[in-house]
Order: sequence, then C-alpha cells, then structure tokens
Amino acid sequence: MSTTGFSASELPRIAADLLDTVRAQTPRVHCLMNTVVQKFVADGLSALNAVPSMTSSPEEVQAFVRMADALVVNLGTLDRQRREAITLALDAAKDSRKPWVLDPAHCDYSPVRTSFTQELLKREPSVLRANASEHAVLQMPEAVVSIQTGVEDTIAHAHGRLVVENGHKLMTKVTGTGCLSGAIIAAFLAVEPASFKAAASAMLVIGVTAEIASSKAQGPASFEVAFIDSLAGVSADDILQHARVRND
Amino acid sequence: MSTTGFSASELPRIAADLLDTVRAQTPRVHCLMNTVVQKFVADGLSALNAVPSMTSSPEEVQAFVRMADALVVNLGTLDRQRREAITLALDAAKDSRKPWVLDPAHCDYSPVRTSFTQELLKREPSVLRANASEHAVLQMPEAVVSIQTGVEDTIAHAHGRLVVENGHKLMTKVTGTGCLSGAIIAAFLAVEPASFKAAASAMLVIGVTAEIASSKAQGPASFEVAFIDSLAGVSADDILQHARVRND
Amino acid sequence: MSTTGFSASELPRIAADLLDTVRAQTPRVHCLMNTVVQKFVADGLSALNAVPSMTSSPEEVQAFVRMADALVVNLGTLDRQRREAITLALDAAKDSRKPWVLDPAHCDYSPVRTSFTQELLKREPSVLRANASEHAVLQMPEAVVSIQTGVEDTIAHAHGRLVVENGHKLMTKVTGTGCLSGAIIAAFLAVEPASFKAAASAMLVIGVTAEIASSKAQGPASFEVAFIDSLAGVSADDILQHARVRND
Repeated sequence: MSTTGFSASELPRIAADLLDTVRAQTPRVHCLMNTVVQKFVADGLSALNAVPSMTSSPEEVQAFVRMADALVVNLGTLDRQRREAITLALDAAKDSRKPWVLDPAHCDYSPVRTSFTQELLKREPSVLRANASEHAVLQMPEAVVSIQTGVEDTIAHAHGRLVVENGHKLMTKVTGTGCLSGAIIAAFLAVEPASFKAAASAMLVIGVTAEIASSKAQGPASFEVAFIDSLAGVSADDILQHARVRND
Repeated sequence: MSTTGFSASELPRIAADLLDTVRAQTPRVHCLMNTVVQKFVADGLSALNAVPSMTSSPEEVQAFVRMADALVVNLGTLDRQRREAITLALDAAKDSRKPWVLDPAHCDYSPVRTSFTQELLKREPSVLRANASEHAVLQMPEAVVSIQTGVEDTIAHAHGRLVVENGHKLMTKVTGTGCLSGAIIAAFLAVEPASFKAAASAMLVIGVTAEIASSKAQGPASFEVAFIDSLAGVSADDILQHARVRND
Repeated sequence: MSTTGFSASELPRIAADLLDTVRAQTPRVHCLMNTVVQKFVADGLSALNAVPSMTSSPEEVQAFVRMADALVVNLGTLDRQRREAITLALDAAKDSRKPWVLDPAHCDYSPVRTSFTQELLKREPSVLRANASEHAVLQMPEAVVSIQTGVEDTIAHAHGRLVVENGHKLMTKVTGTGCLSGAIIAAFLAVEPASFKAAASAMLVIGVTAEIASSKAQGPASFEVAFIDSLAGVSADDILQHARVRND
C-alpha cells in the first residue's frame, strides 16, 4: 500500500471500472485546444462516449464551460484571443467547481508560454500533463497531480507516485496524442473527483489502447485510425489483461 | 403525389441524377466552417468532385463567395471575426444570387448563438440543417427548406415533408459529419435551384453512403475513412438500390 | 549535364541520400500554415522524422522560427493576424539565415492575395511552390527556385529545369497534399543549402511516395492514410527503383 490510497496492483481494476463509468455517464468535456488537433481530440472523446465542445470565443466560452463536466486547457497556437478565452474559462470553471486539466504544450519553447503557464498553475488545475522538457521549466504547486509523459508515464502527487508502463512509440508520431490524453484525463475527472485516481486510470486506459492499436498499424496514420477505433472498443477486460503498472 | 412536387418514391431517381450532375459540373462551394472540421469537409466535397474553399478572412471572403456556386455557413467556433465574415459573405451571396445553407451548430448552447442564428434566418437561407435541440430554439421562416437530422432525417418546406431512413449511427461518433452534410447540400443547391429537391437528394446520398461505409468500418475512425472513400465511389445505382424514403 | 549542376539521371541518388539525411538530422520545420491542414502537415513531417511546429501567434512566432531549421509560409485562410505573423516570421528567418519556402495558396483567387504574394516574393524565398494558375499571376525573381506542380512537377531556376514525372492523381483529392509538399521541401532545405537540389529531391520523394501509397488506396481517404504511412516507410531503394525524372 502506498500513501496514494491505492497500490499499483489495484490500478487496473480501478481504471477498468472508471472506463465503464465514463462510457455510461457520457461526460461533457470542454476543450480549449490548439486548432491543429481539435478534430482528433473531439473524435477521441466521442469514441469514449464523452461529449466534446471546442469553442474558444471569449463571448461564449463561459456558457460552454458551465454546461461541461470538466475542462482541458491546452496552450498550442497561443494568441491574444486564446489567452483571454482561457482566463474567462477558468473563472467559469472555478465558480461552477469544474475540474480542469492543464496541458502546457511547448511551454519550454518561448518566454511567453513559460510565464503564462506559471500563472495558470497558480490557479491550481486538478492535473498537469507535460513531458520532461516542459516539466523542467515549471515550479509545481503541491496540490496539483502531475503527469510526466515519456516512454513510461509517471503520475505523481504530494503523497505518492505510480508508473504506467503501457504505451507505444507510434504515439509520438501522431500529432495530438498528448493533447487527446489531456482531454481523456478531463473525461475521467468528470466522473471521479479523486484527481490522482482519475489521472492514473486515464493514462492506463490510453497506454493499453495504444498497444492494442499498434498491432493493427502499418505506420503512423493507420495507427491513428486504429487508436480511435480502439478507444471505442477497448473493454474493462482489455485493461485488466494488458496493464503494466508499478509503484515508483 | 405530395405537394412537394414529387413523391417519396421518385426521390431516389432524382437524387441519383443530381449526384451525377454534381460530379460532372464540379461546383465550387465556399465554406464558412468551424476550424475543427475544415479539412474533413474539404475532403468530403473533393470526394464528390466539388471544389471547396474555406477562408473566413473579412478582407477576401467576398471575392471567394463571388467565385463560388454556393455557400454554407456553419456557426462552430463563433468569434468576432467569424461573425463579421459571415455578414460580408451573405451580402456577397445576396448580390450574386448564390444559394446558401445555414448550419447553426450548437445554436442551443449559448444566447449569443441563438440570437445570431435567428438574425441569419431572416436573411432566408435556401436550407437550414439542424438537429432537434437546435430546431427547438428557432422560429423558422416559411420560405426556408428545413432539415431535421436524427436517426432519420426529415426534409420539410411549407408544402410537404419527406423522411430519409438511410444513415448509420457511426456518423454521430465522427465530429463533422453534420457539417459536411451542410456542405454537400450546398453542392447540390449549386446544380439544382429547387431547394427542396436539392436538399432531399443530398440527404439521401449521404445516408446511403454512410450505410455503404459502415460495412467497411471497425470503429469510428475507419468509418470516417470509409465514408470519404465511399463518397468518391458511390454510384447512381447504389442510390437506387439502397434508398429508403417515405412521405411523412 | 545541365547547367543546374546535375542531370536528371543523377537526381534519384541525390534524393535518396537527402531522404536519409532528413531522417537522421530530424530538422525542425516551422509552418505558417492554413488552419485547414495543420494536423495533416504536422503528421506528414513527423512521418519523415522532421519536427513540426505551427504557432502563428505574433507574440511568439519569432521564438519558434529561431529554434527551427527552416520555415514554410502558406497563405491559406489569410487574415490580419496571419499576415502580421508572416512578416515577423520572415524578419526572424532573415536575421537567423533560415531557408524558407513560399506556398502562395490561391494567390490567384483575390487581389489581396496576389499583391501580398508579390511582396513576399521580394523577400526572396529559397523556393516558390505553386500550381499553374498561381504562377500565372506572379512575376518571379531570378534568385528563387520555382516549382510548378501539376500532372508532372517542373523544378526550375535561372540556369536549368528538371521534370519529375512521379506522382498520383489522388493527391489532388486530398486537401493539403500541396501544403505538405511545401513543408517537406522546407525539411529538405534544412539539410541541403543548394535550393534547387533540395527542392527537386523533395518533389521526387513525394512523387514516389504517392505512387507507393496509391497501390494501398480504395479512395481519397485511405490514400491519405497510406500516404502518411508510406512517408514513414519509403526507403532510399524505393526512390532509386521508382524515380522517373527528365531534363526539360
């Protein structure tokens, strides 16, 4: 037993159950997503039976957030209007107590991104999802569950860490798999208030799905098609059978 | 014989002929489309041999509309510039007498969208395409042909209604199939001035194509690939063979 | 031997070597790309092992260009902010001596586009990639390598011309294949300073890849999937075996 409240060996069962809960509850996830990957993320959420929305118009983003069950904020293609929309969306999320995920895409690429990300972290997202280079430039608040993605994914909070070994290298060849992961974490947060449990479960489901998809792929584009198809088809049993999780 | 000018049993032949006409005339369709689905819509139009364009820059949208044969206006990701572009595009469409389709995506999601949609309806699109929740918040002008999408699609105008039973539930899992439907209706309007005939034909072609595609799909993403492939391949004979249309 | 420095019969070997160099050096390519095709272009670059970035935010585009090895500027969905971003990006590219490709998409569609393209040509891109209608409205500076795409692709500079016969008509049915070509040319420029050599090699690799992909396609969407998969898999041997190049 780790101080996370559950051990690595318990995650597969927890994740399998949450997968079924997401499918049954069809949570709405509002996505402030870069324009590059909007359709891919929307299709991935729909495949899990979640309901995506995507507007970043300042005039209406708050109405969409209030109707959603969770929010994901991605920094890609960050411009003035997008930053205004993010601020408005987070105000609405706070007022209506919606969980949210921060995906600080490329926050290590420009000073504008680094400082804006640091500001957003002060608003305490439920979960931060970032790769090692992005993590390196950030100071993490203690209350935030932190996911560091890579060959393996580490999910950490103040009291413990788990490592999900599942996944496939073809994911790095498909633009938007990271962004979609952030949105899927939000879908899990919508049905499970314990952020660490939701985040670790989402990462396990994503990793197992990637492995299933890889067996049907001839390259990155057929992998992408198989990944979305597999998100729609992956079962609780698949999770239990394929999961490789360890305490860290 | 219904008061629509033709009965349900005649639609398959009409639709099959119009499909061939679209392929032969390669109409240009300008799309004011949400950024999420632009490529999917462009690829779907190209598959039918129509020629898509997509700019929503206020400086040039009128030049594009004047070169197009029909216009589709979709509200998704509605921001200030998009609203300005829509107004300019509709002015150009009116001056050059181009038919246009209104797709009030999520007009039931925010007051901004509802009232903007109602304003646009006053400009009398040839066709409105919307789902039941969207229809519920709108007051329809009599001159506009109205399509209500769902498990079945109902095409209605002041003097009659038809129901197209063809379609497939996987369409609801692929973001943008509704948006693409709006663009395909515009392509049919470009070659057939009778709006009801064009709209009903387009919906029948889409429904039959979805059924053909579903037989090749393992999930939503392979369905999407098969749907675009099938739009390129669907024949007049396929329409005649698979059509299920009834008077309402 | 032509005055281009190499004859048509030498291009396959040059292109095969440069393909391997791109894969080994993983050049960063910053793309000022229309929103319609951003993901497709990013996935195509990743398939070649190049590293795409896409932001067009004026605040940060210069930081991204400075980190990149080459730049591609595409005019699609040209609005005020995009024009500002292009100007800033080209200033940064000039200061840091990064090669860049101009893809004046639809520059024949509106006066705004034609005159803006002509201004950009004065800044002397390494390569201009355009179709016949686009070329027809432009005056080419002598220093710029010019690619005219079509059933065959002609690559020309002040001292010579080559024709690449490889390619497939399904490319015209997939929105963004031209835009992706521009980005791939930029990836080749990043590893080969001789613009004519880089441009002709990129076009040959694209043409051969399209032919390989077409054998796996049932229509335009499965062609698109196969094209990206094949970009990831195409080998130096494939280039040598399939190349059809002639002096012009």
